[in-house]
Amino acid sequence: MLAATPPPPYYAVIFTSELSASSEGYSELAGRMLALAAAQPGYLGVESVRDSTGLGITVSYWRSLPDIAAWKRHAEHQVAQQLGKSQYYQDFRLRVARVESETRL
Amino acid sequence: MLAATPPPPYYAVIFTSELSASSEGYSELAGRMLALAAAQPGYLGVESVRDSTGLGITVSYWRSLPDIAAWKRHAEHQVAQQLGKSQYYQDFRLRVARVESETRL
Repeated sequence: MLAATPPPPYYAVIFTSELSASSEGYSELAGRMLALAAAQPGYLGVESVRDSTGLGITVSYWRSLPDIAAWKRHAEHQVAQQLGKSQYYQDFRLRVARVESETRL
Repeated sequence: MLAATPPPPYYAVIFTSELSASSEGYSELAGRMLALAAAQPGYLGVESVRDSTGLGITVSYWRSLPDIAAWKRHAEHQVAQQLGKSQYYQDFRLRVARVESETRL
């Protein structure tokens, strides 16, 4: 459930969101996007949680900014992004960050 | 529920964790730490989710690396960190990252 990322530096995409009331079909779409992301060049792992109130955080980890840009442009992902904006998300933040250190238990 | 952070750059502490079976008292301690963090210099906001399986992601946002280091050294936080390592967490990752861009819905 926790990502086995390599030693830093690498990049994190921190996606925090609140689901709308009409979220039918969302979990299937989200699962498909997680699987598709995992098949992209430069993917290093993901950690994703959503609680019963609809608040969710998904952090995906990537080798480089160009890898993140390529995933953003992926055709099937673009369709999902549009569905997310128009239907599924009441609000979201998407932050791209450079991971500089990592500590484990 | 989503953090109203200023324009980047700023820093994110991405804390992902799996709770142990014996988590009595954990939610009170976690709530106290969120409130204490919010009172520290350089704090910009937090987003935190834990699901029913015990998987959690908390992302706190900070103005600078020295602000993060000072919070890590805070006496009451140090006690909580020890309790987390010895009792509450089955596993965790703590990543410090520099946020370079932010997009909102």
